[in-house]
Amino acid sequence: MSILNYLPERPEKPRSSGINMVMDKGIGMNQAHDVINTCGFLIDFMKLGFGTSYVNPNVKDKIKLYKKHGIKVYPGGTLFEAFVIRNQFDDFLKFLDKLGYNAVEVSDGSMKMNHDDKCKYIERLSKEYTVLSEVGSKQAGVEMSTDVWANQMKTEREAGSFKVIAEARESGTVGIYDSTGKPDFALIDILTHAIPMDDIIWEAPQKSQQAWFIKHFGANVNLGNIAPTEVIPLETLRLGLRGDTFFEPLPDNLKHS
Amino acid sequence: MSILNYLPERPEKPRSSGINMVMDKGIGMNQAHDVINTCGFLIDFMKLGFGTSYVNPNVKDKIKLYKKHGIKVYPGGTLFEAFVIRNQFDDFLKFLDKLGYNAVEVSDGSMKMNHDDKCKYIERLSKEYTVLSEVGSKQAGVEMSTDVWANQMKTEREAGSFKVIAEARESGTVGIYDSTGKPDFALIDILTHAIPMDDIIWEAPQKSQQAWFIKHFGANVNLGNIAPTEVIPLETLRLGLRGDTFFEPLPDNLKHS
Amino acid sequence: MSILNYLPERPEKPRSSGINMVMDKGIGMNQAHDVINTCGFLIDFMKLGFGTSYVNPNVKDKIKLYKKHGIKVYPGGTLFEAFVIRNQFDDFLKFLDKLGYNAVEVSDGSMKMNHDDKCKYIERLSKEYTVLSEVGSKQAGVEMSTDVWANQMKTEREAGSFKVIAEARESGTVGIYDSTGKPDFALIDILTHAIPMDDIIWEAPQKSQQAWFIKHFGANVNLGNIAPTEVIPLETLRLGLRGDTFFEPLPDNLKHS
Repeated sequence: MSILNYLPERPEKPRSSGINMVMDKGIGMNQAHDVINTCGFLIDFMKLGFGTSYVNPNVKDKIKLYKKHGIKVYPGGTLFEAFVIRNQFDDFLKFLDKLGYNAVEVSDGSMKMNHDDKCKYIERLSKEYTVLSEVGSKQAGVEMSTDVWANQMKTEREAGSFKVIAEARESGTVGIYDSTGKPDFALIDILTHAIPMDDIIWEAPQKSQQAWFIKHFGANVNLGNIAPTEVIPLETLRLGLRGDTFFEPLPDNLKHS
Repeated sequence: MSILNYLPERPEKPRSSGINMVMDKGIGMNQAHDVINTCGFLIDFMKLGFGTSYVNPNVKDKIKLYKKHGIKVYPGGTLFEAFVIRNQFDDFLKFLDKLGYNAVEVSDGSMKMNHDDKCKYIERLSKEYTVLSEVGSKQAGVEMSTDVWANQMKTEREAGSFKVIAEARESGTVGIYDSTGKPDFALIDILTHAIPMDDIIWEAPQKSQQAWFIKHFGANVNLGNIAPTEVIPLETLRLGLRGDTFFEPLPDNLKHS
Repeated sequence: MSILNYLPERPEKPRSSGINMVMDKGIGMNQAHDVINTCGFLIDFMKLGFGTSYVNPNVKDKIKLYKKHGIKVYPGGTLFEAFVIRNQFDDFLKFLDKLGYNAVEVSDGSMKMNHDDKCKYIERLSKEYTVLSEVGSKQAGVEMSTDVWANQMKTEREAGSFKVIAEARESGTVGIYDSTGKPDFALIDILTHAIPMDDIIWEAPQKSQQAWFIKHFGANVNLGNIAPTEVIPLETLRLGLRGDTFFEPLPDNLKHS
């Protein structure tokens, strides 16, 4: 149905740019089918947010459904940390296996973790799972120097992370954003020069954040923490079919005056 | 089930006042059935917002379902503009036909358009479709004099628009509202004196905006950009069955002190 | 699936602490089944918010479904008030019976009501229904002395209320919160000393409010006005499996430094 001219190219799955990482906070099977049938082809990673997959009794069926449609599924990093802080990493491995996850997130947003230890977890888990690792704190006001951000991202990629995630929480008000949700351009600029753009997934739950990244880095920037109901609206932002990014790739000869 | 006394009268479909225009941003069929089964009788127009119907593979089935229940369905005006700015108006006509739309929106919120041209589009499209046209910019800070607002609304109605829409976006923070979502009373007052009240659909996505219009213009004011999940809550606002508009038509002899 | 150590105990239904009161504003049957299948076991009370059950044609089926899964269902207190202010209390009784409700809310958030009268309604209704009564105004700026709050809660419990609800609205910006949603600690402190903690349900629609109550009063504080989509996320807050309350019951010997 490609009728409109001048639309940006969008790669198909499996892809390494233009990735959508979506956050499911406990939706039921009717909605999960709706998600698959409307925008399954646009979703690369589905995160069952924080500890929700420990609570939701439906989670096995949902993981199965998502995997069947070519989506990598993983539990939010907070659950990984909940096991680690209790010295129950082996139980975490059993948990991943029992539920049928095919990806995993390694993070240290809610607890202190030695960075070498974090990299060992990445290395260990990357033997069996697609690993995403996350850099940045969930706490407002916990500052990390930009050098440390960039360095951790590099070493985590080398340890086996498929992509590194720049933290923003579900709210989009910490990490790479200030408390009002505005992007920290200086930090983002340094990160994009330190490691390849395609290696980063930017958490961008708010529409204004999504539009900002698309305007600055193009239609195929990797974005994360997208709500299931916002995947299709996000695709229109990527294609320039919504007011916020309307026809951004407009050729000069078409510009109206 | 009309047991409660002193409820405002609400006209049935098809109606020309008390209209609800609802915005679907890409919901799936399970939710679409939920919408129909709970509040289909309350929905007059369903807008498949901005470019979402260009992306969502399910859109034909959804349009069919909505039409079957007496709802006029149309793509968001931004998609009309996306075709026009590319000089692809003929392709837009094919697109409307292929998907089975029975209504259309003509807007110039994201691009500059000569107003005579806009009226010609309205005239042309009104031969086959129910046309809604929209006045006002999506950009914050783009001011239009109130005279121009009123004049454009008049001439667009004459050109063939069934109703004219007063712009506010999905967020409710531009056009007839300030950046915090507060109604621009001076502008609204002038518009209501320039053209008949029933000819205008006010975009009012926020609850406080809906309550404001109902308090000022009564239970049967035409409202738009309502989220599918807010149609029933809005109906309670119209009927005075929610705190914000509680029993507004209270007769004197029933007032408690 | 209880693998994680050091999780707080959560009582099973029927329970008198750790209660979730959830607000349904008119969802359809597909979503209602999703709610039941993902978190029905976590829901004690389902409120069909304000007047929505007067409007939604599906409401009988939904009440049946909820009751079948051990949930007490009742119409929002605003609807009770809508009948009372019209002197139609007998019609309200018919309405409750016809729809199959098994609980009811007695409130005076939108109208003035003599407190003796309110207690008589509680007494009368508690013969047939589980009664929740609500204290506090829906109007911003309507102040009630903390003594009056505490006293009304006590007498309403004595009149037959199963629990008393501390008002906050769907928005969480009145009653026990200020206009920005921050808890009024002085008021809350006095209420918890005046009547037993387990007798109160705190309306807490915002995540920050839920986290605040859990941090101050533990995993099993009674919370209300939870959105259907937030019940599972709330459970992770109660269990310390989300950033905001992460591992709050952390034993000293496990603390990382």
